[in-house]
Amino acid sequence: MTEGANAKGRSQAAGMSAAEFRELGHRLVDQLGDFLTALPDQPVRAEDSAPRIRALLDADAFPEQGMAPGEALERAFTLLREHAVSTAHPRFWAYIMGSPSPLGALADLLASVINPPVTSYPTCAITVSLEAQTVRWLARLVGFPTDCGGLFLGGGSLANLVAMRAALHVKAGWDVRAEGVRGPAGAPLCLYASAESHTSIVSAANLCGLGSNAVRKVDTDRSGRMRFSSLAQRLAADRKAGLRPFMVAATAGTTGTGAVDPLPDIAALCQEVGLWFHVDGAYGALAVLSPDAPLELQALRLADSLVVDPHKWMYLPADVGCLLTRDRRVLYDTFHQGASYYADSDEQLLLGGPETLQLRDLGPQTTRSLRALKVRLCLQHEGRAGYARMIGDDIRLARRLYACVEAEPELEPLTHGLSITTFRFIPADLEPQAEAHRDYLNTLNKALLKRLQRGGAAYPSHTDVEGQAALRVCIVNNNTTVADIERLPSLVRRLGTELDAELRPGRQHRTA
Amino acid sequence: MTEGANAKGRSQAAGMSAAEFRELGHRLVDQLGDFLTALPDQPVRAEDSAPRIRALLDADAFPEQGMAPGEALERAFTLLREHAVSTAHPRFWAYIMGSPSPLGALADLLASVINPPVTSYPTCAITVSLEAQTVRWLARLVGFPTDCGGLFLGGGSLANLVAMRAALHVKAGWDVRAEGVRGPAGAPLCLYASAESHTSIVSAANLCGLGSNAVRKVDTDRSGRMRFSSLAQRLAADRKAGLRPFMVAATAGTTGTGAVDPLPDIAALCQEVGLWFHVDGAYGALAVLSPDAPLELQALRLADSLVVDPHKWMYLPADVGCLLTRDRRVLYDTFHQGASYYADSDEQLLLGGPETLQLRDLGPQTTRSLRALKVRLCLQHEGRAGYARMIGDDIRLARRLYACVEAEPELEPLTHGLSITTFRFIPADLEPQAEAHRDYLNTLNKALLKRLQRGGAAYPSHTDVEGQAALRVCIVNNNTTVADIERLPSLVRRLGTELDAELRPGRQHRTA
Repeated sequence: MTEGANAKGRSQAAGMSAAEFRELGHRLVDQLGDFLTALPDQPVRAEDSAPRIRALLDADAFPEQGMAPGEALERAFTLLREHAVSTAHPRFWAYIMGSPSPLGALADLLASVINPPVTSYPTCAITVSLEAQTVRWLARLVGFPTDCGGLFLGGGSLANLVAMRAALHVKAGWDVRAEGVRGPAGAPLCLYASAESHTSIVSAANLCGLGSNAVRKVDTDRSGRMRFSSLAQRLAADRKAGLRPFMVAATAGTTGTGAVDPLPDIAALCQEVGLWFHVDGAYGALAVLSPDAPLELQALRLADSLVVDPHKWMYLPADVGCLLTRDRRVLYDTFHQGASYYADSDEQLLLGGPETLQLRDLGPQTTRSLRALKVRLCLQHEGRAGYARMIGDDIRLARRLYACVEAEPELEPLTHGLSITTFRFIPADLEPQAEAHRDYLNTLNKALLKRLQRGGAAYPSHTDVEGQAALRVCIVNNNTTVADIERLPSLVRRLGTELDAELRPGRQHRTA
Repeated sequence: MTEGANAKGRSQAAGMSAAEFRELGHRLVDQLGDFLTALPDQPVRAEDSAPRIRALLDADAFPEQGMAPGEALERAFTLLREHAVSTAHPRFWAYIMGSPSPLGALADLLASVINPPVTSYPTCAITVSLEAQTVRWLARLVGFPTDCGGLFLGGGSLANLVAMRAALHVKAGWDVRAEGVRGPAGAPLCLYASAESHTSIVSAANLCGLGSNAVRKVDTDRSGRMRFSSLAQRLAADRKAGLRPFMVAATAGTTGTGAVDPLPDIAALCQEVGLWFHVDGAYGALAVLSPDAPLELQALRLADSLVVDPHKWMYLPADVGCLLTRDRRVLYDTFHQGASYYADSDEQLLLGGPETLQLRDLGPQTTRSLRALKVRLCLQHEGRAGYARMIGDDIRLARRLYACVEAEPELEPLTHGLSITTFRFIPADLEPQAEAHRDYLNTLNKALLKRLQRGGAAYPSHTDVEGQAALRVCIVNNNTTVADIERLPSLVRRLGTELDAELRPGRQHRTA
C-alpha cells in the first residue's frame, strides 16, 4: 500500500502491543504501590526553585523521533514523584481537592483503555445508561429527587456555568438560544451570589455574555454566610432600578471557610418571586450525609439546580463534577441541536426512558470520557454508609483542630465550617484586635504559611477572614489521621515564633 | 476521637490499602491485556436490546453499604467488556474518536493516583510547567508559533467555546468582561462558520450569550468546503445591514467529510477587515504532518486561535482537547480574576516566564486533571516522525477504501477528505440521480448502516452528502489494517443486497 508499510498496510512502530502494555502496567502499578506506601513519610511538597524546575523540563527536548514508551513513562513518574504535590498525602489540606481513591484511579485506567463513546444511547447504550444511573445514585446520596436530570462535567466551575445557562433559558423571558442575552432593550439580566461565592460564578457570568456586573454580590457575616436580609434588600432595589433578576446562586460550603448560606430562606424567596434557585454544593453538598453538618444544608433538595463535585468530598481523582437539575428536561432544552429528532426524545425523556438520551445534547461537550465510572465504583465500594463515616471523620478532625488551636498559646482560632478550620498566629506581646498590629499580623501569617508549605511538613492554604490573613486547613482527605492534625498547632507556633524573631529582631526588648 | 474510630482517629473501612491497590491493579492490567489481545476477533458492538441493558444495570442496586473494591471493579469490567463499543477495535470508524493509546491510558492512571493540582505555578510548579511545555510542543508539532498561549481542555467543543469568548474579548469593541455581549445598542455581534462546521460552534454562540442567530452559516461545495465567495458576500451584506462581525470560525477537517476550508483566503480576509481568524482543527490540524493533506491546511499557522484534539488524531483516550492562541496573553486577559496580582503576572507572561502562570485563570475550569500528561508521553513515544507515519497511514487507508468502493459494483463513492471516505449502496436497477429513487436510496442506506453496525463486523457512522444518506468511514485508528478496510465493500454490498430484497420483495420482477 505504501513504501515502508508492513503486511498490515501500516507503518511499523505504531502504538504498543498488549504484551508491552502488560509489562509497563505491572511495573507502574508496583511503582505506584511503593509511592503510596512511602508517601506519609515524604514531605508534602518539594522545595524547588524556578530554575530547577526549568532545568528538569528542559532536559526533555521536543521529540522529533520516538523513544521507548517505558522510558517516557519512567521520566514522567520520576518528575511527578519527586516534584509534584500529591493530594493523596495525609497532610495535604489546601484548596478543595479530595485525596484520590486508588480504586477511582483504576476506574480511570479501565475507562481509558476501553475509551467507549459516551455521547448518545444509540451510539453506546451501556455507557450512557451507566452514567444516567450514576447521576440518579448521586442524587439519591445527597437527597435530591432521583427523577432529576443531570450530567457529569469536568468540575464545579463548568457545572456552575451550565446551570447558569439553563437558568437563563428558563427565566430570561425570551428565546435566549436564538437571540442571546441581549433580549428586549432596557432590562439587563442579573443574578445574586454571596461575596464569598466561588470565582466560577463570576467566570460563568462572563462566559454567558452577561458580564461580571450582572453578578450582584451579597455581603456575608463573619463566618462567610450570606446575609439573607441583604439579599432581600438588594433584590428589591435592583427590581426597582429596572434590572431583571433571574437567579440566586447560593453556596453550600464556601471555599474560604466552609460556610453554608441560609438555603431554606433563599429557597422560599426564589419560589415567591420566581427566581431560579441554584445551589453550588461543589464542596459541601455531600456533608448532608453527616449529622455534624448544618441542618440548613438539607434544603439543597429544593434547588432547581445543584452542583456536587465527586472529586472533592468523594475522594476521587480529578476531574469530575456533577450538575443535577430538578426538571429532567431543562438541560436538553437548553443545549440540544438537531430539531428533527426533538419530538421523540422529548417524549421519551419525560417518560423516563433512556432510549434516546443524547448526553452530548445536555451540555457543552461532545466527545466525553466515562468519568461516571469512578464515581460509580467508589460509591459501590464505600456505600452511603462509608461516605457518611469518612465525611463525618473529616468534619470531626477539623473541629478537633479548632479545639487544639484554641488550647495552644499564641494561636487564635478564627472559623470552623464543615471540614475547614482557619486560625492565625499572634505573638504574645501583640494585641489581636489593635489596628496598629493588623498589617504586621497579616504579613507575619502570610510568611508563616509560605514557610510551613515549603518546609513540607504540612500543606494548608490561605484565606482572608474579615481582612485577617489566616491559615486554612481543609480536610477532604481520608488519609489524614488524628496524629497528623494534632502535631500542626505546635509546629505552627514554633515556625511563627522563629519567623517573628526574624521579622522583629528587637522584639524581646519591646515586650513588657 | 469518636465512637467506632480506630487508633488513627478515623472510622475503619475507608479507602484502600497500597497492598490492595497492587493486587487489583495487577489483575486489571492482566484483564485489559487479554481484552486488547482478543479485541480484533470480537464484534465491534454487541447486539443489545434496551430491556437487556436496563436489566443489566438494574442488577446493581443503590449501594447503601459498601462492597469489596475488587467486586465493584469486576462488575464494571464485565459490563464494559461485553456491552461497550471499544474505540480500540480495529474496525471502529465512527465519529472522530481516536483509538486509545495504551500508554496514554497508563499516563491517565499515573495522573489519577498522584492527582496533583494543575491550577497555578505557586501551588504546584512541576505540573503547570509540564502543561505549558506540552502546549508548546503541540504548537511545534502542527507548525503554530511556539510562543503562543494555550491550554488543555476536555475537548474541541470546550476549546471552541473558550476561543469564541477570547475573540469577543479582543474584537467586541467594549469591555465584554464587565458589560457582557449586550454592548452598545443596535450593533449585534455575529460570526461566520460553514454550514458543515461542528455543532459546537452554534453551541458556543448559545453559551456565550450571542444566540444561535449570531452564527452566520456560509454554504459549502459538494465536498463540504466553505465557499469563499459566499463568505465575502455574506460579510459585506451583514455589515451593510448594521451587524458587527467579529470572527470567522474556519474548519480544518469537517466532521462529515473531512473537508478543509480555504484557510489562506479566509486568513487574508480576516486580516484585511480586522476579524478574529479561528481554526477549528480539532480533527484535521494534525494532518498537516502528512504530505497527503491539502496544502491549504498549512495556513492554520496564521490563525488567532487554533483547536487541536489529541483525543482524535493523536490516538489518546478521551477527553483531551487543546486551544492554542497566537497572543499568549489573550486567555489570561479574558478569564483571569483577582486584579491584585495582575500587573506582575502580565509582565511575566509577556516575558515568557512561567512563575506566575495561573492555569485556572486561562479558562473556565478551576480544579483540572493533568490531561497534558498523556499528550506528553505519547508524543515522546511516537515522536513527530511516528505521528506523521500513523496519520499518513490513516489517510492512505481512507483513500484505498475509496478506490475499493469504486471497484465494487453497486457501490458509489461520494467523498474522500483527510481520513474520511463516504459512499453508498445503489442496487443495480436504480438510477443514482433519479429524483424518484432518492428517498428510497436514503431509507435503504440508513437501514443498511444500522444492520452493519448491529452485525458487529464494522462500525462506520452516517453522514449526509448533499441530501444523500451516506455510510461514513472515519479512520483515526492505528489498529486498523489494510485487511480490515478491504473486506468492507463486499460486506456492505452483501448486506445491501439482502436488505434491498427485504424492502422490495418484488424487485426481480420490476427490473428489466
